Amino acid sequence: MDCRCRTVADQPGFCDADLSADGFLGGRITLFQPKSGYRAGVDPVLLAAAVNARPGQSVLELGCGAGQAFLCLAARVQDLKITGVELQAAYAELARRNAAENATAAHVATANLSDLPADLRQQRFDHVIANPPYYRAGAHSQANDAGRRTALGEGTPLELWFDVAARRLAPKGYLHMIQRADRLPDMMAAAQGRLGSLEILPLAPRIGRAAELVILRARKGGRADFRLHAPLLMHDGAIHQTDGDDYSAAIRTVLREGAALPWPEGRSV
Amino acid sequence: MDCRCRTVADQPGFCDADLSADGFLGGRITLFQPKSGYRAGVDPVLLAAAVNARPGQSVLELGCGAGQAFLCLAARVQDLKITGVELQAAYAELARRNAAENATAAHVATANLSDLPADLRQQRFDHVIANPPYYRAGAHSQANDAGRRTALGEGTPLELWFDVAARRLAPKGYLHMIQRADRLPDMMAAAQGRLGSLEILPLAPRIGRAAELVILRARKGGRADFRLHAPLLMHDGAIHQTDGDDYSAAIRTVLREGAALPWPEGRSV
Repeated sequence: MDCRCRTVADQPGFCDADLSADGFLGGRITLFQPKSGYRAGVDPVLLAAAVNARPGQSVLELGCGAGQAFLCLAARVQDLKITGVELQAAYAELARRNAAENATAAHVATANLSDLPADLRQQRFDHVIANPPYYRAGAHSQANDAGRRTALGEGTPLELWFDVAARRLAPKGYLHMIQRADRLPDMMAAAQGRLGSLEILPLAPRIGRAAELVILRARKGGRADFRLHAPLLMHDGAIHQTDGDDYSAAIRTVLREGAALPWPEGRSV
Repeated sequence: MDCRCRTVADQPGFCDADLSADGFLGGRITLFQPKSGYRAGVDPVLLAAAVNARPGQSVLELGCGAGQAFLCLAARVQDLKITGVELQAAYAELARRNAAENATAAHVATANLSDLPADLRQQRFDHVIANPPYYRAGAHSQANDAGRRTALGEGTPLELWFDVAARRLAPKGYLHMIQRADRLPDMMAAAQGRLGSLEILPLAPRIGRAAELVILRARKGGRADFRLHAPLLMHDGAIHQTDGDDYSAAIRTVLREGAALPWPEGRSV
């Protein structure tokens, strides 16, 4: 087979012929990702846009996949110290490659969340970000691709994501997580006793519609009251009006210009 | 003292001189309540308006106070079999009086949620409704009135409200609860393992503002996904425009005309 494959015997990876190069943030970043495996969508972009990181801070992404979220964050906030953890070796390798291709310094560890490398377990981070798998194990239709199955399914319970996040966060550090809205009860149960100052930003497709996604912000040692923010609308209008892109202005500037997501009535950082 | 007080030695109650008679639902119901104790607001009216009860069904209100919520519900849905439970004997007696004054059949038991009378423990209800105290014990400023303290404070943990509700609900029966939005994490944790098909209807003061109240709907044995609905706006406009009543149309028809609360994209009853 005529491909420029980087795979070597002792290091799993994707064959270049199976990868596509996709632009995000109006071309600010380019992401190599498998054509037929887990495909990045807008969710990691929204997650990155929600993070209130300041230049120079440290960021740990749990389950970083091909690196889309941390690359989007690095494109907006300068001089971040980025660490990614990814269970699947081929995706971890892709994340390293994507970091290099986008001239972003990032350390990516191949590891299970329940068994982080010792050097990571000795670090504390200003921010933890995560876009965990959306479906409960067994609750979704079968995916043909093993990598996609792992990325979509849930080998790792949601509670473990919160547990690791809470342990790795520095005092007053922030967790940001994007998830399907129907997982909110699990998220809030998992956050209890581990993180405080919870805020939920619902992402609704249109005005008057139930939230499909939520972004959770929580703070280690935070003591502020829980807040349920007004939903951010993904699209304008009550119904889909055209065949084209009808993203709302706020979402469009996030997706196309790499802007920060506007948290309503935001707390001070 | 010249009053037409109904209080007798072995039955605590309010002196008539200390009561006011207040109209709700555009005068459809009249509520006697203590002038200086816990004063009914719009929240029990909204709770009652949120309940998807059908004529002839049975309803248990936990912590019914002076009976405002069940009276509002009875004013909208005919032939309900209503039972109230109230810890404070004086309020329970007031609820009985208010039921009689509004020609509504209701059985009101004076009891602690953790120790319901035997006859209640043998019944199952199509609906349980509750407007539990809003503040955590010790978390709020002191109230001068003992009855108001009990109604606002929290002698009974939120978890117990869910536990009793789940036990008293018939299969597929509904719980509706109104609470401050900042208690949502506690509500959702308490619902876990007890009730399913959770839906949250946020009540936001105005567009773009965080929710201040939430109405929770849950179903015994329900298996539907959690839903976070679009917020219902209490007031029109982005800011308070006049000194008068600027309730939104939906809220105004609930408060003034006794209409049902419009659940967005409501599930079938």
